[in-house]
Amino acid sequence: MQPLAILKIGGNVLANDQALDQLLSTFAAWESPAILVHGGGRRASELLPQLGIQPQMINGRRITDEATLEVVTMVYAGLLNKTIVAQLQAKGCNAIGVSGADGNLIQAHQRVVETIDYGFAGDIDRIDTAGFSHLLEAGWVPVCCPITHDRKGQLLNTNADTIAATIAAAMGGSYAISLSYCFEKPGVLADAEDDGSVIPKLSSRLYREYRSEGRIHSGMIPKLDSAFQALEQGVGKVYIGNVQSLRSGTATEIV
Amino acid sequence: MQPLAILKIGGNVLANDQALDQLLSTFAAWESPAILVHGGGRRASELLPQLGIQPQMINGRRITDEATLEVVTMVYAGLLNKTIVAQLQAKGCNAIGVSGADGNLIQAHQRVVETIDYGFAGDIDRIDTAGFSHLLEAGWVPVCCPITHDRKGQLLNTNADTIAATIAAAMGGSYAISLSYCFEKPGVLADAEDDGSVIPKLSSRLYREYRSEGRIHSGMIPKLDSAFQALEQGVGKVYIGNVQSLRSGTATEIV
Repeated sequence: MQPLAILKIGGNVLANDQALDQLLSTFAAWESPAILVHGGGRRASELLPQLGIQPQMINGRRITDEATLEVVTMVYAGLLNKTIVAQLQAKGCNAIGVSGADGNLIQAHQRVVETIDYGFAGDIDRIDTAGFSHLLEAGWVPVCCPITHDRKGQLLNTNADTIAATIAAAMGGSYAISLSYCFEKPGVLADAEDDGSVIPKLSSRLYREYRSEGRIHSGMIPKLDSAFQALEQGVGKVYIGNVQSLRSGTATEIV
Repeated sequence: MQPLAILKIGGNVLANDQALDQLLSTFAAWESPAILVHGGGRRASELLPQLGIQPQMINGRRITDEATLEVVTMVYAGLLNKTIVAQLQAKGCNAIGVSGADGNLIQAHQRVVETIDYGFAGDIDRIDTAGFSHLLEAGWVPVCCPITHDRKGQLLNTNADTIAATIAAAMGGSYAISLSYCFEKPGVLADAEDDGSVIPKLSSRLYREYRSEGRIHSGMIPKLDSAFQALEQGVGKVYIGNVQSLRSGTATEIV
């Protein structure tokens, strides 16, 4: 099968112009077909109070009311997505920016309220693999923002780690997938204070052990859960690291 | 040649939820392949002062400084584009939203300063007709926002009437084009105060006459200039009207 590299870039990388430029240069030079998925937290969090909207987060997840959805749609699908696409185009990479609504590529439903009402948060139902293949076969590099829709006219704010893992699993039937999560640390750390403590290979047994010891916590947990889920759903290779470690092969491999 | 309908929708239609819904229902029911181009003025003009930015217009054209470019990119490429795409998807139309940066579909350069510095305003150099054909052949309906790029990493604010006319002229080599401008009036009016005075067919001779008499003025002039330019560049049919008149065939035809 033809290789397909899926790279997810997080909020802290997006917030640092120099790190983003370096990452996009590395990405633009990749030889295999690729899909980029970006998050977007910080810029939206800056803009919300400027517009008189109080950002609300529970357990690291945003509560998306109607006014917040407008802002994240503007920032994620507009400003961030088009800035990344224009920068990739300048580096010779034929990027095409998409949300889940575009071509119905990522269909979702509004998250069911259990204990917390997340508002217009989307849980993914279906990836249009034929649509993504069509973009890739045309020589385009899809750049996905974390906005999906329910096909009934409602846009939905959707976790970018989950989008990357779900695309990776869905495209696994047609391509040999590698899925990389790029964040600010060189990998999953055995000691959160020591960047030299990258765990080279993280098994689900070791993950459970480190998590119960409290060594792996907070924002890493949903990221690693989606990484292990992708692996279980047949994604061949899953890595977590920063630009340098992903490039040099010293990032954490999920096994 | 296969028909291709290009529809441009302006700011006043976008600002009226009911008119927009009616228009998108009409558009979604069209049988031939189609491209939608939307403008975006008002929402950006509301948002700018909320963010402490003073909107600047000269002769009906926006002066786009760096802060303004961020806002129009958010509103046009993010909020408006994705709202339209999600609404079309809900109506069974497989829309895909694009800016000119996506797939390098519309390459432009920053407008050269003569007497007025328009800032990050883009003048179009090239339409990637193969890219648009590729989207259409996949069964997608491109929805273009008025943001382009220079392929050097710079996004540019670009007039939507001009984008529609330029796409129409460029795609004319492969398709039998009809180009429709949808705005709030039923057509070009002989008397601006009387909606019953629609000019059925407007020739360039009659246009020059009405313009010199001051009957056609202000915002209509750049719209009609781009309509006549499209006609000269081989676009078969050009119409100007509102949802009702375009649907019933009573809009103004440019001849």
